[in-house]
Amino acid sequence: MKIGVDYYPEQWDRALWEQDADRMQHTGVKIVRMAEFAWSRLEPEEGKYDFAWLDEAIRLFAVRGIQVILGTPTCTPPLWLFEKYPEVIQVDRNGNRIPIGIRGHRCLNSPVYRRLSAGIIRRMAGRYAQEPAVVGYQIDNELEAFHCCCPVCQEGFRQWMKEKYGTIERVNEAYGNSVWSGEYSSFSQVTPPMGEHPQWLNPSLSLDFNRYASHSAVDYVRFQAKLIRELAPEAQITTNNWLCENMPDFYDLFRELDIVSYDNYPAVTLPEDTECLYSHAFHLDLMRGIRKQNFWIMEQLSGGLGSWSPMSPTPRPGMIKGYSLQAIAHGADAVLHFRWRTGISGAEMYWHGLIDHSNVPGRRLEEFQDLCREAQELEGLQGSVIKNQIAILYSSLQEYAFKIQYQAEGMHYFTQLKAYHDAFTSLGVGVDIVDWRSDLEEYKIVVAPTILIVDQKITDHLHAFVKRGGHLILTNRSGVKDIYNKCLMQPLPSVFADMAGAVVKEYDPIGTARQKVDLTEEHWKGFRKSLQDTPSFCTLWCDILDAGDARVLARYGEGFYAGEAAAVENPYGQGTAYYIGTVFDRRTMCSLGRYVAEKAGIHCMEQLPLGVERTVRQKEDRQWVFYFNNTEQAQNFFLDSEDCSGECMGRPILPGEQISLKPFEMKILVK
Amino acid sequence: MKIGVDYYPEQWDRALWEQDADRMQHTGVKIVRMAEFAWSRLEPEEGKYDFAWLDEAIRLFAVRGIQVILGTPTCTPPLWLFEKYPEVIQVDRNGNRIPIGIRGHRCLNSPVYRRLSAGIIRRMAGRYAQEPAVVGYQIDNELEAFHCCCPVCQEGFRQWMKEKYGTIERVNEAYGNSVWSGEYSSFSQVTPPMGEHPQWLNPSLSLDFNRYASHSAVDYVRFQAKLIRELAPEAQITTNNWLCENMPDFYDLFRELDIVSYDNYPAVTLPEDTECLYSHAFHLDLMRGIRKQNFWIMEQLSGGLGSWSPMSPTPRPGMIKGYSLQAIAHGADAVLHFRWRTGISGAEMYWHGLIDHSNVPGRRLEEFQDLCREAQELEGLQGSVIKNQIAILYSSLQEYAFKIQYQAEGMHYFTQLKAYHDAFTSLGVGVDIVDWRSDLEEYKIVVAPTILIVDQKITDHLHAFVKRGGHLILTNRSGVKDIYNKCLMQPLPSVFADMAGAVVKEYDPIGTARQKVDLTEEHWKGFRKSLQDTPSFCTLWCDILDAGDARVLARYGEGFYAGEAAAVENPYGQGTAYYIGTVFDRRTMCSLGRYVAEKAGIHCMEQLPLGVERTVRQKEDRQWVFYFNNTEQAQNFFLDSEDCSGECMGRPILPGEQISLKPFEMKILVK
Amino acid sequence: MKIGVDYYPEQWDRALWEQDADRMQHTGVKIVRMAEFAWSRLEPEEGKYDFAWLDEAIRLFAVRGIQVILGTPTCTPPLWLFEKYPEVIQVDRNGNRIPIGIRGHRCLNSPVYRRLSAGIIRRMAGRYAQEPAVVGYQIDNELEAFHCCCPVCQEGFRQWMKEKYGTIERVNEAYGNSVWSGEYSSFSQVTPPMGEHPQWLNPSLSLDFNRYASHSAVDYVRFQAKLIRELAPEAQITTNNWLCENMPDFYDLFRELDIVSYDNYPAVTLPEDTECLYSHAFHLDLMRGIRKQNFWIMEQLSGGLGSWSPMSPTPRPGMIKGYSLQAIAHGADAVLHFRWRTGISGAEMYWHGLIDHSNVPGRRLEEFQDLCREAQELEGLQGSVIKNQIAILYSSLQEYAFKIQYQAEGMHYFTQLKAYHDAFTSLGVGVDIVDWRSDLEEYKIVVAPTILIVDQKITDHLHAFVKRGGHLILTNRSGVKDIYNKCLMQPLPSVFADMAGAVVKEYDPIGTARQKVDLTEEHWKGFRKSLQDTPSFCTLWCDILDAGDARVLARYGEGFYAGEAAAVENPYGQGTAYYIGTVFDRRTMCSLGRYVAEKAGIHCMEQLPLGVERTVRQKEDRQWVFYFNNTEQAQNFFLDSEDCSGECMGRPILPGEQISLKPFEMKILVK
Repeated sequence: MKIGVDYYPEQWDRALWEQDADRMQHTGVKIVRMAEFAWSRLEPEEGKYDFAWLDEAIRLFAVRGIQVILGTPTCTPPLWLFEKYPEVIQVDRNGNRIPIGIRGHRCLNSPVYRRLSAGIIRRMAGRYAQEPAVVGYQIDNELEAFHCCCPVCQEGFRQWMKEKYGTIERVNEAYGNSVWSGEYSSFSQVTPPMGEHPQWLNPSLSLDFNRYASHSAVDYVRFQAKLIRELAPEAQITTNNWLCENMPDFYDLFRELDIVSYDNYPAVTLPEDTECLYSHAFHLDLMRGIRKQNFWIMEQLSGGLGSWSPMSPTPRPGMIKGYSLQAIAHGADAVLHFRWRTGISGAEMYWHGLIDHSNVPGRRLEEFQDLCREAQELEGLQGSVIKNQIAILYSSLQEYAFKIQYQAEGMHYFTQLKAYHDAFTSLGVGVDIVDWRSDLEEYKIVVAPTILIVDQKITDHLHAFVKRGGHLILTNRSGVKDIYNKCLMQPLPSVFADMAGAVVKEYDPIGTARQKVDLTEEHWKGFRKSLQDTPSFCTLWCDILDAGDARVLARYGEGFYAGEAAAVENPYGQGTAYYIGTVFDRRTMCSLGRYVAEKAGIHCMEQLPLGVERTVRQKEDRQWVFYFNNTEQAQNFFLDSEDCSGECMGRPILPGEQISLKPFEMKILVK
Repeated sequence: MKIGVDYYPEQWDRALWEQDADRMQHTGVKIVRMAEFAWSRLEPEEGKYDFAWLDEAIRLFAVRGIQVILGTPTCTPPLWLFEKYPEVIQVDRNGNRIPIGIRGHRCLNSPVYRRLSAGIIRRMAGRYAQEPAVVGYQIDNELEAFHCCCPVCQEGFRQWMKEKYGTIERVNEAYGNSVWSGEYSSFSQVTPPMGEHPQWLNPSLSLDFNRYASHSAVDYVRFQAKLIRELAPEAQITTNNWLCENMPDFYDLFRELDIVSYDNYPAVTLPEDTECLYSHAFHLDLMRGIRKQNFWIMEQLSGGLGSWSPMSPTPRPGMIKGYSLQAIAHGADAVLHFRWRTGISGAEMYWHGLIDHSNVPGRRLEEFQDLCREAQELEGLQGSVIKNQIAILYSSLQEYAFKIQYQAEGMHYFTQLKAYHDAFTSLGVGVDIVDWRSDLEEYKIVVAPTILIVDQKITDHLHAFVKRGGHLILTNRSGVKDIYNKCLMQPLPSVFADMAGAVVKEYDPIGTARQKVDLTEEHWKGFRKSLQDTPSFCTLWCDILDAGDARVLARYGEGFYAGEAAAVENPYGQGTAYYIGTVFDRRTMCSLGRYVAEKAGIHCMEQLPLGVERTVRQKEDRQWVFYFNNTEQAQNFFLDSEDCSGECMGRPILPGEQISLKPFEMKILVK
Repeated sequence: MKIGVDYYPEQWDRALWEQDADRMQHTGVKIVRMAEFAWSRLEPEEGKYDFAWLDEAIRLFAVRGIQVILGTPTCTPPLWLFEKYPEVIQVDRNGNRIPIGIRGHRCLNSPVYRRLSAGIIRRMAGRYAQEPAVVGYQIDNELEAFHCCCPVCQEGFRQWMKEKYGTIERVNEAYGNSVWSGEYSSFSQVTPPMGEHPQWLNPSLSLDFNRYASHSAVDYVRFQAKLIRELAPEAQITTNNWLCENMPDFYDLFRELDIVSYDNYPAVTLPEDTECLYSHAFHLDLMRGIRKQNFWIMEQLSGGLGSWSPMSPTPRPGMIKGYSLQAIAHGADAVLHFRWRTGISGAEMYWHGLIDHSNVPGRRLEEFQDLCREAQELEGLQGSVIKNQIAILYSSLQEYAFKIQYQAEGMHYFTQLKAYHDAFTSLGVGVDIVDWRSDLEEYKIVVAPTILIVDQKITDHLHAFVKRGGHLILTNRSGVKDIYNKCLMQPLPSVFADMAGAVVKEYDPIGTARQKVDLTEEHWKGFRKSLQDTPSFCTLWCDILDAGDARVLARYGEGFYAGEAAAVENPYGQGTAYYIGTVFDRRTMCSLGRYVAEKAGIHCMEQLPLGVERTVRQKEDRQWVFYFNNTEQAQNFFLDSEDCSGECMGRPILPGEQISLKPFEMKILVK
C-alpha cells in the first residue's frame, strides 16, 4: 500500500527541496504528486518551455526511491495565455466571462486552449517517458462539467444536438416543446439553459445540456489521455475525481483511463446526525465501484481545512491515520496526502498540510509517519480486492435530473442512496456502488434507488436479474420519466410495476414532515423491535400503493391514507422484488436491510456498534477483515463468529473474543 | 355555476383528444380554457397561421355541449420571434436582457411585439367570432407590471413623465429632488430605478415608475381588448389575475373588461398561524371587489404544486371540491380547474392536474366529479350576488408605497388589511374589499387601513361618508404622504386628524416585538374577555396619541409611553371615526370588530368556530347561506338564530339546530 | 462643548429658514453643518454657480451667533455631470457601472471628477474665506475606500504597483504567484480582484488592492484639503468618518486634517448580548485615538432610523441626551445631531431628525434642548483631555487581512479588540485605542490583539516597550504573516515568540464551539471566582502552547489537548509579556484585565455595575469624572474611594457616597 504526499517544488525555495525529500524518505513516503498547477513555470511564455527545475525535483525523489506522479498543469493556464487569448475564459449562465485568478476558469472546448494544452502535455509526457520514477499522470485537476456558455460551447451544443436528433422536429418532439410555445423552428434558436433560474426552463433541455457538459469534460480527458499514451504508453493515467456541483458522469470519465482516483476530505467535525456517519464509507465505495476495481486517493485529509471559508477545527488524533486506512479498507491501493507542507501563499494557504507553515514537524506528521509504517506492513494486500454480494446502482442521469427538479423539500438523490448504503454498512455487510449500466451477475441483492428516468436496456437487465433469482429493491420515484426527461403516461412505477406487483394510486410529497408507519411483516417487525421498540416513521415521500397480490411489508399509520400500503415484497421469476414507496427512519431501514439480507442468504453481523465499519479485502484464499471506528468514543464489541479465526495484529483470534477500538482506530484481522 | 378545466390540446397526442373530451363530458365539465400558450402552433413562422387543429379541438367540445374560452397566446411568443426581433425581450434592473425560454419574457411596450400580437389576435378573434361554443377570451396570461428597462420603456417612461408634469422643474419639485443633488436638468437624465438596491433611490421616482409599469400593463390589455371587440363584439373578455410581486393596479386593469378572473391556489398545507386561516377568503373577496360583481376562477387547485420549487403535499380529501365551492360562496360564477391532466413535459410538469401523468383517473378526479354534480344543483344561484355592509379599502398605490419603503420589521400592507378582514369574517359578517376610489354609500362600516398616501378626492369621500352617519376605521400610518410619495408637514394623521379627534405625538416602530395594551372601553373589553381572559397585546407599530376630546379605547400598558392613548373613537358629523394607532392581537381585533359592528347595527354571529366561514348570496328574495369549514378538523356548532329558517340540503332547518361540517365541507342553507 | 445640528436649507421652503434659525437659537444650538449634498443647487449647470442662497442661509445663522461648518458637496455630483461624463461612475467587481441616483457613486480617481470637484470647492472656500461664521469644512461625506474597478482605477492600481515593486518579478515574489500559475509576465495582466468570490483570489493581491483603495480615498481627501487651505487657511478641516465595509485607513485619512469627526448612531435597541454593551464606548475611544486628540461628532442619533431598512424603534427617553454626553465623556468637543428636522423627500425620509415631519416640536427636541442647556454648563471642559494608561492597538492592515480571509467561524478582528476594551472598561479604567504605529511611551499596558501581519518597525517598538518595563498582551493569530500577506515560516507567534516565552505547537480553530479552560494562576483565579464561581470557557481559537519557562496562566480543560497551556505570562526585560492563545468568556476576560492592571499598578474600581461607564477628562489640575448608565435600568452603586472628593452637580461628594443613575443618565463629578 503506497502512502504519499502532494508536493509543489515551484512554491518553495530551492534550498528546501533536498531537506523535504530527505524528511519524506525518512517518514516513509513512497510516492509524490507534482506539477498539476505549474504551467506558468513550465511554459513561462508561449512556446518557451522550462522543464529543468522539474527534472531536478524528480531526480531528488527518484534517487531516494520515491515514485512520482505528474499532474498535467492544464487546470491553471498562465496569465499570459488569458491575456493573449481571452476567448479561453469560461462564460457563465449570465453570458459573462468569469473572473480569472481563481482556477479552472478555462473552457474545455476552446480550440486555442486545446492547442496550447497539447503543447505542454506533449513536452511533459515526452520528456519523462523514459524516467522510471515517473509512474503515472494525473490529467488536469478536479475537473468539473462546468456549464460554459461561450460561443464555442454554444455552437458545440448545437452540433451535439444535431448529431443526436438529426432534425429540429425530433428535438421538439423529444423535449415536448409544444409547451409554452417552446418549439424551435431552427437549430440557430438553441442556447444552453441561461439565467439564474434554470428551474423555469424546460427540464429536457437542461438534462441534455448536462449530458453535453459531461461529454465535454470526458472528451477533454480523453484528448489528454491520447496525447500521453502516444508518448508514454507505460504510464498509469488517472484524473482526480471529486464530488462537486457539476459532476461529469464519472463512469464515462474513467472508462478509458487506467486508475480511478479521488480527493478524500472527510469532515473533521463528526456529524451529530447519525445518518451521515457512514458518508465517508459511501464515497469510498462509490469510487471503488466506478471501474469495479481498486482506486487511489490523490488528496487525503492532512490538517484543518479553510481558506475560502473560515478554518475548520484541526483533525482529531487518529484521523490522519485512520481515514487513510479506512480508504485502504474500502479499496484504495495508494493514498497521497494533500499536502506535505501548508502553503505560505496563494488562496489556499489555510488548507493545511501535514506540516504547518513553520516547517516544524508536529503531531500530524508524527501520526502520518505511523501510517507509513503500518502501510508498509500491509504490503501483502497488494493485489487484494473487495468482493461484495450487494450492489447499489448509481446513475449520473438521475443525479442530474434530481438537481434540475427537486422532488420534495429535503429530498436528494444522494441521500436516497446513502440510506440504503447505511443500512447494510451498519450490519457489517459490504456494499458495492456501481453504474446502473453494470453487469449484475455477481450480486445477490441489488438496490436501485429512484430510477426516475428509465432506460430500456437497464429495465431489461433488472428484470433479468430478478428472474434468475436476484433480490431487487426498488423505491419511490421510479419509472417516472423517459430518457428525454419527459414524464411517462403509465401508472408508477411504470416499467417496474410488473416486478413490484403494485402500482402507485397517488403520491404525497410530504417533504421534511414525518409520519407514523406500521410494519406489517412480522419478521421485519421483529428486527425493528430488537433495535428499539419505538414507532417506525417515514418522511419525504409517500407512494400510496395498490398492492394487488404482493405481500404488504408496511402500511401508513397516519393521515388520509392510513392503512394503505407503503412497501411491498413480490416474488418475480426465481427472485423477489421489493418496492419501498417511502423513506423510512434509520432504524427501520437497518432492519429492512437485515430482512432482505436474510432472504438473500447474506450473513449480517449480530452486533456492530454504530459508527464501526467492517470491510473485507481478499486475495486468493486470504482475507483481511478491517474494523474501523469512525467515532470519537472507544468501542468494544464481540467479534462475529465468522471473524473468530485467523489473527489480528500478529496475535491469534480467540472464539468469542472482544475487540476494542480507540477513536478512529483500525484493526485488521488476517485469516 | 359552471365548472370547467384548462386543457392544452397542443401538448397531447391527437389520439387522446376525443377520449379526453368524452371523459370531461361524463365528469360534468361545462367549460374549457385553451390556447393561451399555443402561439408557436398557431403561427409556426411569421405570418403563416395554422388554426386547423384548434378548430378541430373546439369542435370536439362544442358537439359535447362544452363551452370554450380562448386565451390569446401572447404570454409566450415563439422562439422565431425572439430570434428575429431580440428587442422584444425584457431588460432587467441591471440593464440585461432576461433569459428566454421561461415565459412572460417580452416587453409589453415593444412596437414589434404589439404588431405581431395584433396579427395573431385578429386571426383568432375573427375566426371564432361566429363559433357559438367560444364564449369568451382571456387576454394573455397572469400579466405582471414588469419593471422592464429596455430602451422603449425608458423612453416611454420619459414621455409619460413629460405628459404628467410638463416641465422638468415640476418633476424636481414633485419628487423633492433637491435631496442628494438629485435634480434633473433635462428629461434625458431620467431613467427607471435601476440596480439591486432600489431602496436607496428616491421613493417618488420609484412610485412613479410603478405607476408607469402598471399603466403599461393596463394599456396592453386594452390594446388587446379593443382588437377582440372589433371582431367578436359578443365575446366576454377577461384576463386572469394573480397576486405577484409586480401587480398592475387591478381596478384599472379590469375597468374596460367584462369579467374579473383569478388564479386560485390555496396552500395545500394549512398554516399553523391561525391569523392566516381566512387568507383564501380575503383573496376571493378582493377579487369580487375589483368590479363589485361576481368573478371567475380561471385556474383552480387540482393537485400538488411544484416544478420550480419542490413538490408540495397532495391536496387533502375535500380540498378539490371544498375550495371550489368556497370560491362560489364568495362570488365566483365559474371555476376552471388547472388542469385536466398533469403535463408530461416542460417546466411545469409537476404542477399537478386533476388526473396524474398516468392518465388513470383517481381520488382527485372523483372528488372533482362530485363537485361538478353539486355545482349542477346550484343552477339557481345564477344571477345571485353578494351584498355586504362592510367595506375594506384597498389601494394599489399604498401597496406600491409599502413595498418601496418598509415601515417596520414585519409590517406589510396586505397584513394590515387582512387583520380587519379576519376580524369580521370570524364573526360571520361578510366583507367587501373595494378600490379606495369606490362609492361608499352602500356601506355602514368602512375600514381604511393605512392610507399612507393621501389623495384629496378620497379624503373628501371619507369625510362625507362619516358625516352622513358612517363608521370609519382609520389606522396608524395614515395621512403620511402626498400623492408624489413625499411626507406631509402636518401632525399625523394629517388630513384625517379632524375626524380621528386625535393626533400622533410620536410613533414607535416596534416591529416584531409585542407590548401589553389596556383596553379602556368597557364594552369592548367585555367582548375581549369573552374570547379569553388574557392580556391584550399590540405589535409592529405604536402611535402615541394626544386624544384630545376623543374617547380613548385603549392605552399602552408598557414602556415609556405606558398610559398613553393607543386607539380612540370620535363622533364626527352623523357618524363615528375610529383611529387605531397600533396593531392588536387577533382576539382583540375580533372583539373590536364586534364592538364596531354593534355600534353600526350589524348583526354578528354569536358563535362560529375559528376557520369556519359564513357567506351569503342572494337573488330577489332568495338567500343562499354558505358554511365552509376551512380546517382539518370536523366542526360542530349551533346555527345562528338568523339562519334558523329555510332548508339545508333539501331538508328544513329546525330552530336551534346544530350543524356539522367535515374538513373542507361546505353546507348551503337556502331561505 | 458645542452642540449643533445638521441642516439642509436647499431641502426646505425658503419661508421656513428664519423660523428654523429662530428655534435653533432658542433651543441652544451653537453650530450648524450645511451644504454637503447641495452640488446641484450650487452648480446647476457646468460652470454656472449659484451661492446666493447659501450666503443667505449662512447669514441667518451668523446673525444669531450660530457657527457654520460647510460640507464640500462632492459626495453627490449632479445628474448633468453623470450624463455628460459617464466615466465618472464607479465600476463594480463585476465590471459594471453602478446605478446612479444613490450617493457616493463616483470614482475618486477620475480626472474629470477631480477637475469638477476642484471647481466647486474653490468657489466655496474662496467665497466664505472671510465669513467668520464659517469655522470649518467637512470634506465630502462618509467616504469609503470603494473597490472601483473602472479603467482609471485599474491603470492607477498598476502604476501604484509599479512604484511599489519596480518589476513584475518582485510582484510575483512578494505575492507568491507561483501558486496556481498566478505569475504575471507583464504589468498589463494585473487587474483588481474581480468577481463575487474574492476569497478564491490571491490574498496578497487583495490586500494590496485594499491598500490602493485606501490610498485613493486618502489622496482624494488631501486633494480637497489642499484646495481649501489655499483659500481658507484658517478653517478647521475634517471629514466625517463612519465604520463601513470598505474603510480607508483612518489614521492616514486624518493625518493631514485638523479634526477627526465621526457619525455616531448607537443602536436604539440595546443588545441582549452583554458582550456588546460597551460597543459605543469602543467606537468613541477608537475615534479619539485616531489623532490622539479630542474629536467631533458630525452626525448624532436624533430619532428612529430607517429608510433602506424598516424603521427602528424610536430612541428611548434619555438616549438623545445621554449618548451625546457619552460622546463628550469620551473626548468629543462638539456634537452635531443629524438632523434638525426629518426630511420629507428623498431616500432618507425615514431617518428621523430631532423634529418630526410635522415640524411640531416633541419629546426628542425637548430632550435635546436639555442637552444644549447642560452642555453650556460644561464650558469649563474646553481644553480638557483624556489621559489613559492603557492602549489597545488597532491596525487597518489587520482589519483588511481578517476580512480577506476569515480565520475561524465567528472570529472577527473587531470582536478581538472589543473583548479587551470591554474588560478594562467594565473595571472603570480608561482605554485608548491607537494606531499600531503609535508611540507607546505614555502607556503602562499595551494590548496588541492578533497582529496577524507583522511589520518590523512595530515589532521593534513592542519589544522596546516591554524591555523598558511595559506590560504587553499578545494574542492568538499573531506573527502569522509578512507584510505581503504571505505566511511566515516560523513557529508562531514567530517574531513575538521570544517575548511570549512560548510557541504554538498546533492550533485548533474551534469557531463558535465552547470548551472548558482551567485558570492555573491563583490570583487571577481569585478575581474570576469573585465574579461568579462558574467554569471558565474559551471559544473561537485555541493555540496549543509549548510554554517553555513561561508561567502558565491557563490550561485547556477539554478535548485532546486538555492540560496543555492556553495562556502564559513571561518576564521580558524590565516588563512582562502575556500571550493569550485563545478567547475567554467575558467574566474571565474581565478578571484577566484586573490581574494585569494590578501588576501594572493601575487602579481599578472595586465595583461598577455592568453597563455603567466611568471616564475622566482633565485640564491642568482639574478633573471631570463621568459616570454614564448605558442600560435601561436604574443603577445604584458606591463611589470608588478615588472619586470621593470634589463635587457632583454642584454638591460636595461625601465619602462612601452612593450614586444613582437613571437609564442613560450621565453624572459628572468635578474635582
